[in-house]
Amino acid sequence: MYVIMVYDLQADRTHKALKIGRRYLTHVQNSVLEGEISEGDLKKLRNEIDDLLEPGESTIIYELSSDSILDRAVYGEDPTEDQRFL
Amino acid sequence: MYVIMVYDLQADRTHKALKIGRRYLTHVQNSVLEGEISEGDLKKLRNEIDDLLEPGESTIIYELSSDSILDRAVYGEDPTEDQRFL
Repeated sequence: MYVIMVYDLQADRTHKALKIGRRYLTHVQNSVLEGEISEGDLKKLRNEIDDLLEPGESTIIYELSSDSILDRAVYGEDPTEDQRFL
Repeated sequence: MYVIMVYDLQADRTHKALKIGRRYLTHVQNSVLEGEISEGDLKKLRNEIDDLLEPGESTIIYELSSDSILDRAVYGEDPTEDQRFL
């Protein structure tokens, strides 16, 4: 299946969510990762994120059927260069 | 169709993307909006966002078939209370 993950953590902790997410997905924007993932890995990802979050922080994981993205348009600069966000 | 929009603007300009997005979609997390949208409104939204962005800023708009979200899990606090982000 295909997953889009968007995290919203305190500024000095965002790198922790990114580190977890990048083990399974591709970093596509500041706080967004996406990619194909197995059910087993998705379960691990969910657990790791759930353990990470502190009060006031959140993460949304959208689980999509693999062919369901009709269009994915990036406006502005495509910030897939990860060094901006480390 | 169903749209997920994730914006990444300079901190003091995020409210502008939110203001545009909320005319068409529902604010579900810090920099994320989603919802059903007509093709006409999606075209307007794309144009307004494209006009707004400055160098170094970006926005991703995922266009999905309406029934393609298999699961949408929120971890941590569900920050749909917009006042946090104004």
